[in-house]
Amino acid sequence: MWRTGATLVFGAGLGAAASRLLSAGGRREEEGGAGLMSRVPVIPVPGVPTVQASELQVSPGSSGAVMKYGFPSLGNIKTRESYVTSYDPRTRTASWVIERLNPASLSGLSDRKYCEFKEDDSVHVFHRATNADYKGSGFDRGHLAAAANHKWSQKAMDDTFYLSNVAPQNPHLNQNTWNNLEKLCRSLTKRYLNVYVCTGPLYLPRQEADGKLYVRYQVIGGNHVAVPTHFFKVLILEQADGKGVELRSYVLPNEPISEQVPLERFLVPIETIERTSGLLFVPNIMKRTGGGVRAITDR
Amino acid sequence: MWRTGATLVFGAGLGAAASRLLSAGGRREEEGGAGLMSRVPVIPVPGVPTVQASELQVSPGSSGAVMKYGFPSLGNIKTRESYVTSYDPRTRTASWVIERLNPASLSGLSDRKYCEFKEDDSVHVFHRATNADYKGSGFDRGHLAAAANHKWSQKAMDDTFYLSNVAPQNPHLNQNTWNNLEKLCRSLTKRYLNVYVCTGPLYLPRQEADGKLYVRYQVIGGNHVAVPTHFFKVLILEQADGKGVELRSYVLPNEPISEQVPLERFLVPIETIERTSGLLFVPNIMKRTGGGVRAITDR
Repeated sequence: MWRTGATLVFGAGLGAAASRLLSAGGRREEEGGAGLMSRVPVIPVPGVPTVQASELQVSPGSSGAVMKYGFPSLGNIKTRESYVTSYDPRTRTASWVIERLNPASLSGLSDRKYCEFKEDDSVHVFHRATNADYKGSGFDRGHLAAAANHKWSQKAMDDTFYLSNVAPQNPHLNQNTWNNLEKLCRSLTKRYLNVYVCTGPLYLPRQEADGKLYVRYQVIGGNHVAVPTHFFKVLILEQADGKGVELRSYVLPNEPISEQVPLERFLVPIETIERTSGLLFVPNIMKRTGGGVRAITDR
Repeated sequence: MWRTGATLVFGAGLGAAASRLLSAGGRREEEGGAGLMSRVPVIPVPGVPTVQASELQVSPGSSGAVMKYGFPSLGNIKTRESYVTSYDPRTRTASWVIERLNPASLSGLSDRKYCEFKEDDSVHVFHRATNADYKGSGFDRGHLAAAANHKWSQKAMDDTFYLSNVAPQNPHLNQNTWNNLEKLCRSLTKRYLNVYVCTGPLYLPRQEADGKLYVRYQVIGGNHVAVPTHFFKVLILEQADGKGVELRSYVLPNEPISEQVPLERFLVPIETIERTSGLLFVPNIMKRTGGGVRAITDR
């Protein structure tokens, strides 16, 4: 295994490391250590009227609502009770999953004790992950859209247990720091009108001994389910006064991460995720908000 | 470099190796050495009328014609004069490219001396390959849809020079065995009414020393263009009497291959490509031909 003792350092320093590694064409994002939070931008939305009360009436999991800021890609879109996703049939997991959290979606009587991980039979059998693929692999079935985000409906919670909403995740990460990041997303619903969360896998290159860059990831089970090297979460935060949208984007390595490391250390410029994932977030958000492009990233 | 002296053996034996490695759930395709050609199936098309003369009037590169047997996936489709393609913004190359060859598309005065490789500015700059990415990489800019297939129109030939129709290819492979496979496609237009060719990259897993399977591929240039481990070509051959469709599918490693190795050695069951690429060919062909599903593969 190449995941060695250097893991935590790599993990903790990922923001800076990823920027150096991933910025192309000589561009480099500026990076400060403790000052990372200062890069979290607020987008002014001049042309958009104050959010109407009708917005708040929408069913918590309606896919129409989830779509508000567009989709980062358009292949193999699946709409579920609690999220919308784009499936990658080559890796046997999602490219991304978008959900919308607010106090209404978080409250209810749904219980995960009634849920079971299940194959997604809307995916062709050649490209579908199964529970058997995970068994004995050493990886957890890590939710992309988190179960606890969808207590408003048992069906919505059930839908998060499709294996198309799951990726092989390091168990320590899943049960600790990743879980903390999911909790952070939920806690942000206290301060924002809606929290849009887009989650997905990354397969990032590393420099090897020959000086060249390689993407290398394990595949597990008979169906060769890809083990992401990293995961991203992009948070689109709607201010309660309807005046702006805030963006936070995280990249975490698929490795054990000490809970001592603050989550802010995993903030990265959205451009880093856009470049490496092949997805685009900013243009869609701009279309919706009608301006303020420059404010989101330093582009 | 892990491409060692064992390369040619791996390359030559790929059909069998890939079947063993890639068949899932305990399924195994039967594999004979010299008998591989015998597995090339002919699909009877009972319900389809004899091809009409109107079919032959279609402009050689019309995308309507190229679509006849459907698309293997639906993300990021681009229609060009000579081909239709699905772009993969994460790998910075195509997922697949489909073209249709016949005597009309192969003849004309177009000349590649007027062509230059060029960026595809329909792709976002974050996800676009450039000529600079290839420079000094040690890899050729390998055409997916081949230039010489589209002599009928200078524009059609020009369009094959978009870097979205290109992938990093071992120069020896590109200039020898791969070139021979392209020539074979063209020569088949003498025996078949139309030759539909779908070409794309593969990123196949290998077992490493720890006994686990890993996908590992180099990325080149500032934009991290993925170097495929293998390439596939799927040929859909329309019989001149309009009575049937024949399928041939090839997988070649992205490595030097001796021209002594016959191309038939790289034939694989279509299922192998469907499983590993995340694409589907057979269901679309079946829809078009109206039956004969069992005949294409041994499923």
